[in-house]
Amino acid sequence: MNVRVRGRSRHYRTVAFDPRRNAVLLIEQRLLPHTFKVVATRDYRETARAIRDMVVRGAGAIGATAAYGLAQGARAFHGRDLTRFTAHIEVVFRALAAARPTAVDPVNALYRVREQMSAGNNVVEQQRLALVAAEEFAEEEVIQCQGIGRCGARLIRDGMRILTHCNAGWLAFVDVGSATAPLYAAQAQGKRFHVFCDETRPRCQGATLTAWELAQQGLSHQVIADNAAGHLMQRGEIDLVIVGADRVVARTGEVANKIGTYTKAVLAHRHGIPFYVAIPFSTIDWRSRNGRDVPIEERDESEVLGAWGTIQEPKADRGRLVQVRVANPTSGARNPGFDVTPPELITGLITPIGRLKPRELWAKREQLGDQRSAGPGRTRTGET
Amino acid sequence: MNVRVRGRSRHYRTVAFDPRRNAVLLIEQRLLPHTFKVVATRDYRETARAIRDMVVRGAGAIGATAAYGLAQGARAFHGRDLTRFTAHIEVVFRALAAARPTAVDPVNALYRVREQMSAGNNVVEQQRLALVAAEEFAEEEVIQCQGIGRCGARLIRDGMRILTHCNAGWLAFVDVGSATAPLYAAQAQGKRFHVFCDETRPRCQGATLTAWELAQQGLSHQVIADNAAGHLMQRGEIDLVIVGADRVVARTGEVANKIGTYTKAVLAHRHGIPFYVAIPFSTIDWRSRNGRDVPIEERDESEVLGAWGTIQEPKADRGRLVQVRVANPTSGARNPGFDVTPPELITGLITPIGRLKPRELWAKREQLGDQRSAGPGRTRTGET
Repeated sequence: MNVRVRGRSRHYRTVAFDPRRNAVLLIEQRLLPHTFKVVATRDYRETARAIRDMVVRGAGAIGATAAYGLAQGARAFHGRDLTRFTAHIEVVFRALAAARPTAVDPVNALYRVREQMSAGNNVVEQQRLALVAAEEFAEEEVIQCQGIGRCGARLIRDGMRILTHCNAGWLAFVDVGSATAPLYAAQAQGKRFHVFCDETRPRCQGATLTAWELAQQGLSHQVIADNAAGHLMQRGEIDLVIVGADRVVARTGEVANKIGTYTKAVLAHRHGIPFYVAIPFSTIDWRSRNGRDVPIEERDESEVLGAWGTIQEPKADRGRLVQVRVANPTSGARNPGFDVTPPELITGLITPIGRLKPRELWAKREQLGDQRSAGPGRTRTGET
Repeated sequence: MNVRVRGRSRHYRTVAFDPRRNAVLLIEQRLLPHTFKVVATRDYRETARAIRDMVVRGAGAIGATAAYGLAQGARAFHGRDLTRFTAHIEVVFRALAAARPTAVDPVNALYRVREQMSAGNNVVEQQRLALVAAEEFAEEEVIQCQGIGRCGARLIRDGMRILTHCNAGWLAFVDVGSATAPLYAAQAQGKRFHVFCDETRPRCQGATLTAWELAQQGLSHQVIADNAAGHLMQRGEIDLVIVGADRVVARTGEVANKIGTYTKAVLAHRHGIPFYVAIPFSTIDWRSRNGRDVPIEERDESEVLGAWGTIQEPKADRGRLVQVRVANPTSGARNPGFDVTPPELITGLITPIGRLKPRELWAKREQLGDQRSAGPGRTRTGET
């Protein structure tokens, strides 16, 4: 999407590859929204570290980063010995897969790139195919997000006030995003509407990342406390809810997503407000039996007890990025990272091939199963 | 309640009076939970400023502060001229009433003290009666909170996990609190239970004040993000919800309280979890026709866009209290401060004279109406 940097608007992807420098280019998300910066990782170890340290986050984005990381590792190999090359690829694969052990997307991406490159007869050919596969992986994700956009934009009418939760925006993917895709597509169609971004405590991805994205695209929006959505719904000030998902359990239609999603679904249901979940195919989990199979990651309590931001007061230190403790220093916290929303609260899924009821997924498994899907590695819901 | 200061436990009230120094003693709430400090205001102007600047907050606490402030102003008068004295009292009254124009409690308190003191035949007698009236006002509030505690403690059983929202604790009253009163009473009865404190964004009164209170009293508790309560309810980890209220509309049984209360009530209702609202009589609004008569204060967007806390990182600045900007710098916010919960979501009111259904209030107006009640000055829901 376009980003204004020093007064100029330029197109960026969250994750990209520079073949001349053999570098993965990543938007440094830990500095957003305060500073926009693209970093280049020069070898696969640096790329793995960027995934681990959350320079890049979001299921789709870390999948593409891992794909590029494997191509990068392949291309850095010197020599023509295919056996040694294959052993090297194993090391690269494991380093990238271990970077975010709870996420399935990097693993899916790595399997796919390794499989496609293995068709090459020699090292040079495999190196070339690795990059082709990584580029294809990233491109396919963008195409899926664009499909979500076309499908979801039909739901948006002039004057609507739309609520979203967390960041399922282009920063969480290679480009376009899932929950944001319908917004950007509707904007391109000239529709006018307003977006409320749930702050999304404790990590505040809504207030930081989604709000930054929408501001960059010039979309009318406001941040609200997670507490405020119920009141706004009650007063008739929200017409539509669109969120992303960490995974959708195909057998039951349950949706695991960032903590607080379930609450918004319960509220929307009470008020008769359509509640949609926008997902690419990689988000569908074909293996779990039901939502209870989805272990909910209990994250560090420091996230709930504090916040990150730039100093406003005292004025002398204005602009410095610091971590603060908000809560009582002698209190602890519970911090479940995700929750599970049952299908009866979900109006529909917005997918690249159209809208579906969550409970339709399993019946359509033949048709959908050959799409890129959540693989056997997915065992936990990890912070995205 | 007891506070541990430098290793010693000592009893404090949120608001007290020192007749020797003619000073109102207030716990400086803007420094909590990071620093515990009692400040003494030496004249009524300082007392008014303390109310205005939120040194003291919470409906019950600012009511008592205003009552003491009027006594303080009366006692500072030198001379025996009753006409001049009465004119002076008018000035003091107006200064204190104007300190928090949206709140009704100080106005109720001031009327009451002025009325009681006017029974005196001379300046000295009126000065004496002013302090008697202020002390009575504060004492009556404490007695009501204790009554709430006795009534509400019956709901609490061993092993329960109780959710509360915002701070309706002793810091919001003279002592004991409303929503916290049943917790403290049950603790005194030897019951063991666990409390989840909603963080209560944007001002985080749950994470700061309630968590601090519970820690001081040695009650088992954890802070949670406002987003997490729905998930915990879904997993059967919350047995009871007790909140306070800013006002209860007697005609309809609707409850206006801190933003996010409505959401918790909707969630509790879905999960069949008892949802109680603890209130003294001063919280009952006998005048409004319904919840739509309660104007919801739209507060400054800076509250949603940032946070207050002590620096954790970088370590060199550790412990300094700063205000930070969390959200994207080019985004704005909506910040409704309160919401209205309909009576069908409320299991019961916990009052000093027992549990009531919200819809029973109006029928019992004869019986309850002679209790201390919300007066004609109440026109807005103000931040408490």
